[in-house]
Amino acid sequence: MDLATLSSSPATTSKAPMSLLVIGTLAYDTVETPFDRRERALGGSAVYFAMAASAFGPVRMAGIVGEDFAASDLELLRARGVDTQGIEHAKGESFHWGGSYAPDWNTRTTLFTRLNVLEQFHPKLPKSYCESHYVFLANAEPAVQLEALAQCSQRKFVVADTMNFWIDKYLPDLKRVLREVDGIVLNDEEARMLAGETNLIRAARKVLSMGPRYVVLKKGEHGAFLIGRDAHFSLPAYPVDQVIDPTGAGDCFAGGFMAAIAEADNTEPRTLRRAMLYGTVTASYCVQGFSIEDIGRRKRPEIEARFQELLQITTV
Amino acid sequence: MDLATLSSSPATTSKAPMSLLVIGTLAYDTVETPFDRRERALGGSAVYFAMAASAFGPVRMAGIVGEDFAASDLELLRARGVDTQGIEHAKGESFHWGGSYAPDWNTRTTLFTRLNVLEQFHPKLPKSYCESHYVFLANAEPAVQLEALAQCSQRKFVVADTMNFWIDKYLPDLKRVLREVDGIVLNDEEARMLAGETNLIRAARKVLSMGPRYVVLKKGEHGAFLIGRDAHFSLPAYPVDQVIDPTGAGDCFAGGFMAAIAEADNTEPRTLRRAMLYGTVTASYCVQGFSIEDIGRRKRPEIEARFQELLQITTV
Repeated sequence: MDLATLSSSPATTSKAPMSLLVIGTLAYDTVETPFDRRERALGGSAVYFAMAASAFGPVRMAGIVGEDFAASDLELLRARGVDTQGIEHAKGESFHWGGSYAPDWNTRTTLFTRLNVLEQFHPKLPKSYCESHYVFLANAEPAVQLEALAQCSQRKFVVADTMNFWIDKYLPDLKRVLREVDGIVLNDEEARMLAGETNLIRAARKVLSMGPRYVVLKKGEHGAFLIGRDAHFSLPAYPVDQVIDPTGAGDCFAGGFMAAIAEADNTEPRTLRRAMLYGTVTASYCVQGFSIEDIGRRKRPEIEARFQELLQITTV
Repeated sequence: MDLATLSSSPATTSKAPMSLLVIGTLAYDTVETPFDRRERALGGSAVYFAMAASAFGPVRMAGIVGEDFAASDLELLRARGVDTQGIEHAKGESFHWGGSYAPDWNTRTTLFTRLNVLEQFHPKLPKSYCESHYVFLANAEPAVQLEALAQCSQRKFVVADTMNFWIDKYLPDLKRVLREVDGIVLNDEEARMLAGETNLIRAARKVLSMGPRYVVLKKGEHGAFLIGRDAHFSLPAYPVDQVIDPTGAGDCFAGGFMAAIAEADNTEPRTLRRAMLYGTVTASYCVQGFSIEDIGRRKRPEIEARFQELLQITTV
């Protein structure tokens, strides 16, 4: 498939529109990098995911916001083709996270986590959302992920994310999630912690034995791999010259990955491999700007161009 | 090219034998890993390089050994098809290095470096060696690398290695080497140090501006990339389940890389890309055993099988 075909065709194909749902957070982030600092920048797992995925087609978003959440931020999402019906408006403040990156970018310190309205979040999906075929359960308390999942009666392929806190404190619930989903995305630290294995391949295989068909292991600047019972695909990261803010890169990876699968409407080996490249591309745009400033304005032809470039860099 | 063709054909092709020379060290290494320890195991950059490259065809080796160097170790090299005429025998002890790996494998501490006969090494290549087309200058004092290089009158493609010590203390000489060679292999730490740049892509580009046509950047378990003025190829490491001893992995990478180029007898983009895969394969065998125990017994069909597997893992 050449670039010209792909750039011009997605909007005009006869396929049904992508049937993709994300359940996750909408947040304001205060981020300090070695070079700069932003107060209350738009963030949250569902926001990053949707900003990446919406370059491919429509995305349904479920989450919760407080009274401080700017109408202009919701408008930004809608302007990208994100369905915001499933966003609950609650009394109180929106989720607010603060973090700081060390000069080497590899160490992130959480400065504060103010859950605010997130503490009362119990997803109640609009009826139209329940028909979604492709579902991403962004990082959340496993019980909340299961509540959302139970409502997705038409699901074909579900991928979940998680984090060290849930692995440490809510392992039995997380293991239920692992038995219910098709795939799990983990970073290297999470995989090691969940599996109790230092070697990442062995760790991923051990997570596979907990239930999911696929484990996607994200290693940041070192790339990512996907492993399944009969699948194994590994690729380096797209070489970004200058990282501005790594926040949200994992969610943008998931956004590109899931959107590519939802668009193809199958989970054949080639689709999964291409989806890994798309996720790598959307993550690479994410880290090039603060918050959603870069990924939030990328259109499909730019994603396609970088996909081709990545293919070029990684093909013998 | 399929596996069957490749496995059976190299020995029977009508091509001239590989014209490959390595100048480097022969050593005894005392190595402590998180799980084990070996005293005076066979090592050295030229030994690792030759053990990897000799799976492809004959290799000429130049270096220096002391009176303690075991005849059986030289025999081991000759049995692999290594030409040992260029190994100088000197009074005194052979080069002896001791190192220890931290439990995470990522930190290596040098316990001692006894240069011994290496201090008096000034390569004088046998006449037949001077006709070599493909030359690898393993890690050595840059002035010694230049002495060797000056004797390679028939060289077509020369790649050098170096280390932090030379970057720190002998930079002007090293810069001369960089202007004379076609390629340089560096690990991430060396590239950052030589370029004064944290971002590896920018670091590699800066090293390119110092003279070589290609920079091969090795990131250990995170893979490697090759960058040139009009070339860019990146690939993940082969997924090794259990690392036994990482010593020599970089030299084995160089051995597979250079042997694949010497065998193809060209430096076309596809040859360089395939050579990066072969280097990744030979390095992966290296780390699976102590010293040269694993790579030293691998034959071409095994290398070819893993090459195909790596291709499978990394191709969309």
